[in-house]
Parts: sequence; C-alpha cells; structure tokens
Amino acid sequence: MVYCDYAATTPMSDIALEVYQDVAKNFFGNASSLHDTGGKAMDILDQARAILADIFHTQPRQIVFTSGGTESNLLAVDSLLRASPIKEKKHIITSEAEHSSLYYYFQELSKSEDIEVTFLPLGVDGQIDIEELLQTVQPHTSLVSIQHVSGETGVIQPIADIGKKLKEQDIYFHSDAIQSFGKIDLEPILPHVDCLTISSHKIFGPKGVGAIYFHPQVTLLPHPVITNHEHGLRPGTVDVPAIASFSASALQQKQQISHNKKHLTYIRELFCEKLKNLEVPLRPITSPAQCPSIVGCIADFVQGDYVMLEYNRNGIDISTGSACSIGYTNIPRSISPFISDREEGNRYIRFSFSHLTTEQDISQIVEISNRIFVRMKEERTNYEKKINW
Amino acid sequence: MVYCDYAATTPMSDIALEVYQDVAKNFFGNASSLHDTGGKAMDILDQARAILADIFHTQPRQIVFTSGGTESNLLAVDSLLRASPIKEKKHIITSEAEHSSLYYYFQELSKSEDIEVTFLPLGVDGQIDIEELLQTVQPHTSLVSIQHVSGETGVIQPIADIGKKLKEQDIYFHSDAIQSFGKIDLEPILPHVDCLTISSHKIFGPKGVGAIYFHPQVTLLPHPVITNHEHGLRPGTVDVPAIASFSASALQQKQQISHNKKHLTYIRELFCEKLKNLEVPLRPITSPAQCPSIVGCIADFVQGDYVMLEYNRNGIDISTGSACSIGYTNIPRSISPFISDREEGNRYIRFSFSHLTTEQDISQIVEISNRIFVRMKEERTNYEKKINW
Repeated sequence: MVYCDYAATTPMSDIALEVYQDVAKNFFGNASSLHDTGGKAMDILDQARAILADIFHTQPRQIVFTSGGTESNLLAVDSLLRASPIKEKKHIITSEAEHSSLYYYFQELSKSEDIEVTFLPLGVDGQIDIEELLQTVQPHTSLVSIQHVSGETGVIQPIADIGKKLKEQDIYFHSDAIQSFGKIDLEPILPHVDCLTISSHKIFGPKGVGAIYFHPQVTLLPHPVITNHEHGLRPGTVDVPAIASFSASALQQKQQISHNKKHLTYIRELFCEKLKNLEVPLRPITSPAQCPSIVGCIADFVQGDYVMLEYNRNGIDISTGSACSIGYTNIPRSISPFISDREEGNRYIRFSFSHLTTEQDISQIVEISNRIFVRMKEERTNYEKKINW
Repeated sequence: MVYCDYAATTPMSDIALEVYQDVAKNFFGNASSLHDTGGKAMDILDQARAILADIFHTQPRQIVFTSGGTESNLLAVDSLLRASPIKEKKHIITSEAEHSSLYYYFQELSKSEDIEVTFLPLGVDGQIDIEELLQTVQPHTSLVSIQHVSGETGVIQPIADIGKKLKEQDIYFHSDAIQSFGKIDLEPILPHVDCLTISSHKIFGPKGVGAIYFHPQVTLLPHPVITNHEHGLRPGTVDVPAIASFSASALQQKQQISHNKKHLTYIRELFCEKLKNLEVPLRPITSPAQCPSIVGCIADFVQGDYVMLEYNRNGIDISTGSACSIGYTNIPRSISPFISDREEGNRYIRFSFSHLTTEQDISQIVEISNRIFVRMKEERTNYEKKINW
C-alpha cells in the first residue's frame, strides 16, 4: 500500500506514540488538581506549552491547546471577535477557499445581524489579490482570516504581505496554518499575523488535539462559559497525554523542516516530471508559490471519484479533496482558478506526500497511473465504438 | 501514593492503552477518507459505536462521539434545544448543583432574550424535589437537565422518576451521567431520559473523548456548521484511536459493574465506619441514594484547601471539589443541603474511590487522617493558649 493522503491525516510517529504512552501511564492526573498527581500532569502540560511557544518564538501563555484543527479555527475566530475593539456590527474578510470548518462557520456567522462577511475569490495562481482585499476593508472590519496553504492545491497565500498591510489598519489577522505547519517554515509570516491555528494529526501527532498561537498584542477576553482551563479560553479537562505527544511531534517536525522541505520538493518535482511521460495526461495544478507536499491534479477525462477508487484497487490511497468535505458533491472551492468549468473540476484528484514518501513510491504511483488511465481510455474507446456501431 | 481522586480523572487501563496503541498504529486513516486506509478506520469507529450502542440498548446512530465530557454536555444541550418543537422563547429547567461546565453555560444562555432558565435548589438529602420541578414547568419548557450523580457528594438524583413525569409533558430530558457511567447501573434510568452524556477519562479510558446517547425518538437537526462527521452533529476529524480505546474501557467497566458496585460499597462502608473512630471527627456527607465511589466530608475545624495539602504531603491525593472549579473560591453548590453556613462549606474535602482502591489504602488514609487532624488540633490548641497567655 502506498499512502498518498498525508494532507488528510498522518500515522503517529514512534516518538509521538511513546510520549503518549508514557504520559498516559505516569502523568495521568487532572492538570487542574492541586495535589502532586495533578501537579505532575501540569508540569508536563507546561513543558508541552513551552515547546510550542518556543517554536512560535513567544511566551507559553500565547499558546492555547484545543481538541483539534476545527476547534482551533472556531475558537480562534470567536476569541478574536470577542477581543476586537469594535463592539457594534463587525465585518470579517475571508476567502471563498477556506477549509470547510471555517468556510461554513463564516457562512453561518454572516446570517447574524451583528456580523457581515466578505468572501474574496481567489485570483490568478490561486492567490488572494491583496489590493482587492484592501479595497473591501471597512471601518468596522474586525478580522481577516486567510488560510496559509490550501489543502487541495498546496497554493501558499501571501500571508506576510497581507499582514504588513493590515498592521497599518489595526485589524486582527488570523491564518489557518494547519496544512503548512511542519511542512514549510512559518518564520517569515510569524511577525505579521495575530493568530495561527494548527493541528496535531497532520504532523504525525495524535488526533483530537490542536493549538492556537495568539500574538502577545491580542488582549483576549475569557470564554463565555466560566472556566479555568487554557487561560480561561476553553472549558474541558485538558488532554495532557495527547498534548505532550503533539508537542513531541511538533518539535520533531520543526527539527526536520529543512530536510522535509528539501525531500518534499524533490519528490514533487520527480512526480510532476514523471507525469509528463504518462501516455494519458494527468495535469498537476501549479502555481509560483506552492507547498511541495500537495499535488492537486486534473485527470484527462474520468471523474475524480472513479479514479480514486481505481487507485485504491491498486493499493494507492489518494483523495478527491478534503476528507472533511467527503460526501458533498461540491468541487473544492480552492481549485476554481485552475479549471475552466465544473466538468473539469469533477476530474480533480489529490496526491499528498510526506517525509515518508520514497522515490519507489513515486515510481509505483506513476506506473499504476499509466496502467489505470490507459485501461480506462481503452474502455472508453471500445464503448464509443460500440455505441457508434 | 494513595490516589483518592478518581472522580477528577483516572489512569488509562491496560486494555485502553493497548487499544489506543493498536488503532493509532494500524488504523490511522481519516475515517472520512474513502480509500481503504480510511475505510479501515471507519470500521473501527463503527465497532466502537456499536459497543456503546449495545451498552445503551440502542442503535449505533444514537451515539455521538465528542472531545470529552464538557463538549458532550454543551453539544447535547444545544442539539436538544435545536430539536425542540418550541421555536420561540425556550424555557430550561436545571439545578443549582450541575457541573460547572453546564451550570455556567446555562447562566450564559439565560442572558439571551430567547432563553429563560430556572435553577432549582437541592432539597433535603441533596435531591431535587420532583414536585417543585413540576411546578416550574411552563408551556414553553423545552428542556430539563439534571445531573445523575453529583461529583462532590455522590448523591443520586431520581432521574427515572423525573423522566416518567416529564414524558407525560413532552419535554426533552437530559442527564449528565459523567460521574455515574461505569459506576452504577444506568439501566433503570435509560427508558426515562432523552439524552445522557458520558466521558472517557472518568472510566479508565483516554482523555479528550466523550459521548452522547440520544433516545431514538429525538429528531436531531444538523449542526449549524455544515459537517459530515458524527451524523452531521459535530465538525472535526474523528479521533478514532481514542474512541476505540474509550469503547474498550466502557465495555470493561460495563462487564465489571456488579463487581465494582459491590467493591465500592464495601470500601465506602469500611471508610465511613473507620472515620467514626477518628479522634478528631471527619463527617461524611450521607444521603439515602448515593454513588459509593464518592465520599464528600466536612472536616472539623480546618479549611479544606489546607487539609488537602496536608494529605498531599502525606502521599494521599484528595480534592476540595471538582477539578474544573479549582481556582475559584466558591463552595461546591451541591453541598449546600449538608452544611449550615459558608464557614462549614469551606471545610469540605472529597475522597473518590475506584475498583483499584484497596482495604490497605483505606487503613492508610484513616491512619494518616488521624495523624493530620490530631496534629492540627494540637497546633490550634497551642496557638490558642499562646494568644490567651
């Protein structure tokens, strides 16, 4: 089996499994309990928070742990809206291509009388047009929320450039970094955002845990449900074993980031090069700024779902979009700049790689791709002959 | 170390750790992915859901997995309010003694123009007065939410009796069974509630996972944020390893429930009997209907926090209330029927036991209790002599 769906989820690394096991066994206390068993769990939680804080060059109090990427996104947005100095009707600017957890949440918020939301379309190359974004800014704009890297195309948004412009305007700026964290360097964007959201299971940590980084200049108000967990921002017993495991994974990914980036860039280039030699074309979506772990492709003539099942039958796991949107017939919103019509959109498939992807994997995918598409093309030709006969 | 804070959290059982490890390693896929790696994770999720459904004598679709007890409570209440046929202003009846996650949420909801909340006081023996509850029912009452077992006193509420009365009135009835699940039999209350909420880490499963049982007659509406996870009730990648581990723990606790109940009843009686022989009294809170795992006590003259630290110094982990309320100076709301004033309330401490608690543990706790209180009494007497000298 060749797993090419690392953007959907990753297996836990050995270190993540080991840390989880160790903390669950030896530091099982409730981190809010005041006795030693609780205190030891709190020490582990503090260590995990310090690791994340160090990665984000900030103080531990700027890191909030959550139950995963979706909660990170929703809690970040809610916290920033509560922190906003604008108390009357608030305006949010986001894109049409955000992850479904946020896109549909913004759609829901836009139904409220107190909130107005602008959904920006993607421009050429799948990027937000900064000028267009700035033109939509209004006096009551409280929040801009733009995903760092698209999980479907790998396109990197110009977060630093957007952030620099927004800083002049005193608007909170959040970026969903769930697909980028651990894969590309976040250093260049860090000084220019107020908030980043990340998830553990995308970086070889456990599922069920995520985090939010808030810039120190954001003055957060407590969660409406009175709580002493996570600096008063989130109720619920803190999952210390998963958080410790997540922090171990995050540290490992941070240490490997140069290696990962180099390896993934090589893998992506190798894959795209080999795709050119296929007898039946498979067109990779390309853009000048792209995260190398994700290769979205447009198949030549067959629907993505059908192609995905064929790959699956041949031992290759790929996807037709975010696993969070499976079951919906919608074409991923982020691929719109790269297709001419809906029919083409239906032929979208995604390969997503990691440091575990090998040259052999790529050769195998390409070989099987050739086999699948040649056979499907033959079938279609035979069928066409039959009906024209 | 003698751990007597099982009501705050429990260590993961061997089976829970083993299942977590196995699923995280071998079934790591995103359960929403359509390829085989996703399908295998979905199979595990289905099995876990079937185990919980079996425990609740229901169909798998009636079980919703969450990120823990707090989310279970909040999502249950929100889902029932959305499902309520009353579309205008809704009335909720709850108690003054709910777990902080719900109590403060209801306080928050009561600020909304669309929601009215009645907080019932506890009656004698710490139980809800059913007649009083029924008198507060109004035509727009949508939901009654009463905790099954208090985490602070162990008092069991008359859930079946309340449920029978409410069934005649067509009002949704939720019970927070987080402290009772796995400790006392839920069978007698099952036919009389519309919804129960449970948590994994209270029953030797992993932290970060919980569940909701909905009665089949509740017609649920989807979550406002469009999602295909958990029957459309909750967004966020499903944490299959933790869920599988939770279900293994739940099954084990279910199988051991008669044994656990017998053991805990014995342990509680032994403890309360031995407390009578202490030189300085430690008064256990007693009520005719009590979960044997929890023994709330009123110390004779010293503040609970100070007593707790003394126990801790002597290797015994106890609590002064829910770990979720630590840091607040509030006296647990559930102990009000058992104290005459605030000063007495400040002397509350809690021991909570499990099937792992032994006779030797009890002997050790009692011996240390004697030592602590005798010394503290001597100190007080000496101090009094000194200031009177």
